[in-house]
Amino acid sequence: MKRYYYSYNDFIKDLKILLSKIEKYQPDTLLAIARGGLTIGHLLAEALNNKNLFSLNSIHYDDNKKLKTIKIFNIPDLKEAKKVLIIDDIIDSGDTMIEIKKILIKKYPNIEFKIATIFYKKSSPIQPDFTIKEAKEWIDFFWSVDLR
Amino acid sequence: MKRYYYSYNDFIKDLKILLSKIEKYQPDTLLAIARGGLTIGHLLAEALNNKNLFSLNSIHYDDNKKLKTIKIFNIPDLKEAKKVLIIDDIIDSGDTMIEIKKILIKKYPNIEFKIATIFYKKSSPIQPDFTIKEAKEWIDFFWSVDLR
Repeated sequence: MKRYYYSYNDFIKDLKILLSKIEKYQPDTLLAIARGGLTIGHLLAEALNNKNLFSLNSIHYDDNKKLKTIKIFNIPDLKEAKKVLIIDDIIDSGDTMIEIKKILIKKYPNIEFKIATIFYKKSSPIQPDFTIKEAKEWIDFFWSVDLR
Repeated sequence: MKRYYYSYNDFIKDLKILLSKIEKYQPDTLLAIARGGLTIGHLLAEALNNKNLFSLNSIHYDDNKKLKTIKIFNIPDLKEAKKVLIIDDIIDSGDTMIEIKKILIKKYPNIEFKIATIFYKKSSPIQPDFTIKEAKEWIDFFWSVDLR
């Protein structure tokens, strides 16, 4: 599969566009999905001057061949929030994001959740509300490769 | 006060050195302090191939002139952890880090906590276990300014 190196400079260009879309929505809280959404969430929160930047974790268990389980944990306290922007690098299959949104809506039925990612895939049944680029190849994000 | 722009390129150079120090310690869990420690935590966790990257939040209340209160919240579940690396961009006065360490040790007395930052100040009563540079001027971190 072709690989695309996603550099810090590409990222800043894209994030400026994403920021302008998000600014219109005015979320009161940013929720970054660890690990992929953390750098994006950090820069967006600084630019929006928003200190309500939280994270949550998700793990895929593929041990059992019949059952793929997604564990969502470290869900932050959102009781003060009204408009939460869930942030990740990419929506790939969509499985994780569907599970995250389901759990969050169940726990906080009165909060409006929207999703921002840099990359999306057309094949995913869940699509981000704010996004930039279609992912057509394997992406080497700078945060995954620049220290290696 | 003189200002120092801390660029992404400076960051990668410093983080490679920090990574080599941390690799010897082999933490099982990384705990990034939001917001300043998130980008550092993200890149370190990817380089260490460690998915146990969590975050916590801290807020200073300066409303009351007599009392400066620091609120630490969204403390993640660390019951599986033995060696936790607390990650932040800088230890400035040290007030927040002292409070964070105190609360974490009280909640998890059997975990070993160590601290990694890029910048330190000689005047702080608490010092990081792993660090790179003395902060001698105001630092404009790239994650705070590159999107503005």
